[in-house]
Amino acid sequence: MPVLGIHHLGIAVDDLDAAVLVYGQLFGARLENRETLASQGVEAASLHTGTGRIELLSPLGADTPVGRFLAKRGPGMHHVAFQVDDVALELARLRAQGARLVDEEPRPGLFGLQVAFVHPEATGGVLAEFVRDDRD
Amino acid sequence: MPVLGIHHLGIAVDDLDAAVLVYGQLFGARLENRETLASQGVEAASLHTGTGRIELLSPLGADTPVGRFLAKRGPGMHHVAFQVDDVALELARLRAQGARLVDEEPRPGLFGLQVAFVHPEATGGVLAEFVRDDRD
Repeated sequence: MPVLGIHHLGIAVDDLDAAVLVYGQLFGARLENRETLASQGVEAASLHTGTGRIELLSPLGADTPVGRFLAKRGPGMHHVAFQVDDVALELARLRAQGARLVDEEPRPGLFGLQVAFVHPEATGGVLAEFVRDDRD
Repeated sequence: MPVLGIHHLGIAVDDLDAAVLVYGQLFGARLENRETLASQGVEAASLHTGTGRIELLSPLGADTPVGRFLAKRGPGMHHVAFQVDDVALELARLRAQGARLVDEEPRPGLFGLQVAFVHPEATGGVLAEFVRDDRD
């Protein structure tokens, strides 16, 4: 089975502290982890929503991927991450199908996880991520 | 626990048949159900992605909620649905917090499920849905 499930839904926000509060109040989301990843220009908070998980993303500056997303689209859903056992294998499978990728190789992502992104052009407008998470 | 988990991710698409094929090829998504809900102006396909679920939404016309979304934003992620035990209770809880709602009462949604939508203004730009699903 290529995809084990939805690992998380990534959401771009203007104010990370405020968003953590709002998702807690509205949906009972509980903070799992919080991290700044300077190489990606993002500060992120991972929250559990029952068995699900959302990842709130706040840009470290305007000239970052999430900063440009916010300027263009405003706050809202940014990407969906599918959990897989082998990120490199999934990338190879998609490449063989001619799907456009953002990351040609797995790379370190937030929270020490191995990730790779698939280009929205391949999916009909959805930025998708593969993630391996041995913690689950 | 207010939210049991992420029930599905709703994705607006231009061509439902093509999208079902693409999500199958790229992510191993398997068709669970397909339905036209004329009252909402939408044709939908529910797909399993491992333990996760995505809902592909195609508008029946331009002057429908999904048709207007596509015209404004293009294809892509449309909403996230949180599974709950009691949709009415969650709506009451959010109303008591002053959160803006789309649906003031639970209503019949796709696939015979009881649903209600929360306005993106309440969440920082994310259209969120509560859904009760006794099938799971």
